[in-house]
Amino acid sequence: MKISIAQLNYHIGNFEGNLQKMLASVEEAKKQKADIVVFGELSTCGYPPRDFLEFDDFIKESEHSVNELAKASKDIAIVVGSPTVNPVIEGKDLYNSALFLYDGKIQQVQHKALLPTYDIFDEYRYFEPAHEFNVVEFKGYKIALTVCEDIWNVGNENPLYVTCPLDEMIGQKPDFIINLSASPFNYAHSQERIRILKANVERYQLPMFYVNHSGAQTEVIFDGGSLVMSPNGKVYDELPYFQELVKTYELKDVQNGNQEFEQTKDKMTLIHDAIVTGIKDYFGKLGFKKAILGLSGGIDSAVTAALACRALGAENVLGVLMPSEYSSDHSVSDAERLAINFGMPYKIIPIKNPYNAFLNVLQPHFEDLPFNVTEENLQARSRGIILMGISNKFGHILLNTSNKSEMAVGYGTLYGDMCGGLSVIGDIYKMEVYALARYINKDKEWIPENSIVKPPSAELRPDQKDSDSLPDYEILDKVLFEYIENTQGPKEIIEMGFDEKLVKRILRLVNINEFKRYQTAPVLRVSSKAFGMGRRMPIVGKYLS
Amino acid sequence: MKISIAQLNYHIGNFEGNLQKMLASVEEAKKQKADIVVFGELSTCGYPPRDFLEFDDFIKESEHSVNELAKASKDIAIVVGSPTVNPVIEGKDLYNSALFLYDGKIQQVQHKALLPTYDIFDEYRYFEPAHEFNVVEFKGYKIALTVCEDIWNVGNENPLYVTCPLDEMIGQKPDFIINLSASPFNYAHSQERIRILKANVERYQLPMFYVNHSGAQTEVIFDGGSLVMSPNGKVYDELPYFQELVKTYELKDVQNGNQEFEQTKDKMTLIHDAIVTGIKDYFGKLGFKKAILGLSGGIDSAVTAALACRALGAENVLGVLMPSEYSSDHSVSDAERLAINFGMPYKIIPIKNPYNAFLNVLQPHFEDLPFNVTEENLQARSRGIILMGISNKFGHILLNTSNKSEMAVGYGTLYGDMCGGLSVIGDIYKMEVYALARYINKDKEWIPENSIVKPPSAELRPDQKDSDSLPDYEILDKVLFEYIENTQGPKEIIEMGFDEKLVKRILRLVNINEFKRYQTAPVLRVSSKAFGMGRRMPIVGKYLS
Repeated sequence: MKISIAQLNYHIGNFEGNLQKMLASVEEAKKQKADIVVFGELSTCGYPPRDFLEFDDFIKESEHSVNELAKASKDIAIVVGSPTVNPVIEGKDLYNSALFLYDGKIQQVQHKALLPTYDIFDEYRYFEPAHEFNVVEFKGYKIALTVCEDIWNVGNENPLYVTCPLDEMIGQKPDFIINLSASPFNYAHSQERIRILKANVERYQLPMFYVNHSGAQTEVIFDGGSLVMSPNGKVYDELPYFQELVKTYELKDVQNGNQEFEQTKDKMTLIHDAIVTGIKDYFGKLGFKKAILGLSGGIDSAVTAALACRALGAENVLGVLMPSEYSSDHSVSDAERLAINFGMPYKIIPIKNPYNAFLNVLQPHFEDLPFNVTEENLQARSRGIILMGISNKFGHILLNTSNKSEMAVGYGTLYGDMCGGLSVIGDIYKMEVYALARYINKDKEWIPENSIVKPPSAELRPDQKDSDSLPDYEILDKVLFEYIENTQGPKEIIEMGFDEKLVKRILRLVNINEFKRYQTAPVLRVSSKAFGMGRRMPIVGKYLS
Repeated sequence: MKISIAQLNYHIGNFEGNLQKMLASVEEAKKQKADIVVFGELSTCGYPPRDFLEFDDFIKESEHSVNELAKASKDIAIVVGSPTVNPVIEGKDLYNSALFLYDGKIQQVQHKALLPTYDIFDEYRYFEPAHEFNVVEFKGYKIALTVCEDIWNVGNENPLYVTCPLDEMIGQKPDFIINLSASPFNYAHSQERIRILKANVERYQLPMFYVNHSGAQTEVIFDGGSLVMSPNGKVYDELPYFQELVKTYELKDVQNGNQEFEQTKDKMTLIHDAIVTGIKDYFGKLGFKKAILGLSGGIDSAVTAALACRALGAENVLGVLMPSEYSSDHSVSDAERLAINFGMPYKIIPIKNPYNAFLNVLQPHFEDLPFNVTEENLQARSRGIILMGISNKFGHILLNTSNKSEMAVGYGTLYGDMCGGLSVIGDIYKMEVYALARYINKDKEWIPENSIVKPPSAELRPDQKDSDSLPDYEILDKVLFEYIENTQGPKEIIEMGFDEKLVKRILRLVNINEFKRYQTAPVLRVSSKAFGMGRRMPIVGKYLS
């Protein structure tokens, strides 16, 4: 019995594209002499399909893909993920299903039972949980089909669900487990995934074939890293990260478990490769080639540019330097040096004239009030408009260069430096941006050393430094991490030894700036808690604010 | 047995404010000789608390409020909604509960069983459904406590859930039903609500006391309209819309059902009052007083200004007229007339200089390409910056004036006319904007007739009309309604008799402009399907696009 894992990069709603990709993988699996080929969760329609699922037409398109795949299942069994219709009136209208196709037909359907509805997930919004569990019999083997979350209630101290689907199936004596997943990346996830799979195979003493998606869908990035687990708890094989691949395994070998392979999981390598994948797929799936971004000479735009050059090719990334009267000399020279290092095109467009034009038309209305954040915002917004102008004229997508620390505390200008179609480093704290810059420079000084070592500054008033208005990033980032990733409250964070006034100030800044984040570009998600669809906060809330 | 309904306007996370408001209502109910006073769903913390629920500190604050209310329950029973902790390790950590307080203590807790997770709702994200159902015994009566959605599985052709909580309780022979709700407004909702309550009281042959929230939380508006239903299916009383109130009923009278009162439900009155409430609470709950908006002389900004004046007082609404070389004469005169009619302050700031400054710095980079949407966007963005400049200097909130039709098809400039902290009419199609203008003008020409009758135009190039790039709004709005509110697909809409090419073009425009809506202000929700948290769409999806 040979089982093929097809780790593919799907595209939400691109039924024909996904189908052709799967059909090609079926052929490849046949070449590899596989008896079964397994695709990812909801592979017909891509993941997460979100409210497209509410359209009957979308479901019919998914069904059409399943039927086409069924026709291709003459000499090979196919396990595919797809939404299916709940025939019962009571309950949600759909199931999230694994379909077992063979001999030209749908032989069996197993619905998903555990529906993740936390962080970026919304599955109970659409799907009815499975109420029945039946193993599939095929060529003398019994197979337990599961979908993603179905195996995640094992190995947890605080399980989210009251049942485990495999507990229901184990009495039917399956020979192995198949899991169809769409399990989004974060830099700690591949380790956690192995821990959970280990807990499953050890509990049920069965081999498992775990098939993940690869590639990004807007902010959600899938790392692949599909797994073949032996019943002894060992990782028999781990597929590469951020790549498409069809690979075939002999069941007996996996049962024996005398092979072990796992990839290294270096945090910065993972983040780097995830973001490059995220940029590449955002542009590719939207049909765009060229990016534009502002280059300030600072570390954030430098790292963003570096990642964009690696994703799109330096010739497709246009840097725009927009100095003002408050810009330091090194801001231009550092930015130029960066562009030259990567070989990316760049332009220099001073903002003096538009900025002065705004000052002139507004000053009669400003009632002689002193220079303040208003004028700083005018500069940032003049830059935003220049970037959007070029973007509109030539069809670039503007990349947002805000980091997670400044997005958290609202240290950025809405409609100014917060412009952009995609936030590249918005899930990376400032200290992690430094680490990523060092990682990018590991073999060569791509990012000018001066951009890394100089004190961070928005350069919107004379001699401004970030540290004038913000706590040191070393401390700020730690407090933010406890609040955002670990959902610790003020009491808990203060008890960790942080200054009470500082903690309250930071938490307040995070909460009162929700309105800014609400209007920000989607953020490539690389941590366990990114801003955006995975963190849903009230704007008018009065809590810690 | 006298039961008080306390229909209140809560504030998310404002525990002290909500508590004081409830304690005052307890006193009021006592004055009205009530035996029981009933508050809304999750009234300790406000609704929807969203991911604040993930913070232990937030739950402890809720528990503190319950304990304080319990202390006040010496001579009166109090029914309050609050999140409570699930003591069992398996399952979600919280319940959404109705707590029955009396004699200084929590006497009983009934958890919510049906957890809405569609449209704006995310309850399964946080809450475990109730597994047990017990009526409350009080002064010789048995009371069935239910929370919001618990009664919504009755009276539906396609019920979302496989159980009905009241079916579980009815065997315990309750005397009446209490329902704690936080049921968001849309213009058809009060009618639908009565239909569902009627189905419930007729099915169980019991009176029902249904308590809703009043007031807005960012985009979600609660209309109040709490209901007292007699077992004969008649509406015994319907509380006012968009008001706070404590009102007491004698159970026997309600059982007899020989009174009937229901408010008129005129669509435009409801929308008007809902939006005024939405603006008022957005500002009030964030601690702001003053609004700013651009006045173009067109209908959208006129209606937005009118609603803002009614919500905040005309003296607190600053209009800014920003003519360009493409502005018609009437654009300034109509806008001035509007401001004068309402008595609101206004300024005139031509955009010529900033716009020219952008053209000058950009033209060397535009490679002699012809005038196109880029230059139009530069004008819209120059206006956006001017408005944000004044907003920043004086602490106004900028109101967004986009309507639902243009938001749907992307007929607006990101960081330009799509700027703003709150979208006032973003859930109202263009034809409805006209109807609302007529409604506002029903007793007097507040909005200049010319703003209503002239052909809509963005005035961003010579002689431009909306109809140059968009289908007639009469047709566009109908197609959008079928697609957005009714989730009909292309085939269904074409079968209704709309032109195939036009339908496909419109649906494509809606889908490819998701990236713009992603970065738009929260939209006051008045329909059954508003853009924002209730409609969750992929950006990189390739579906009908």
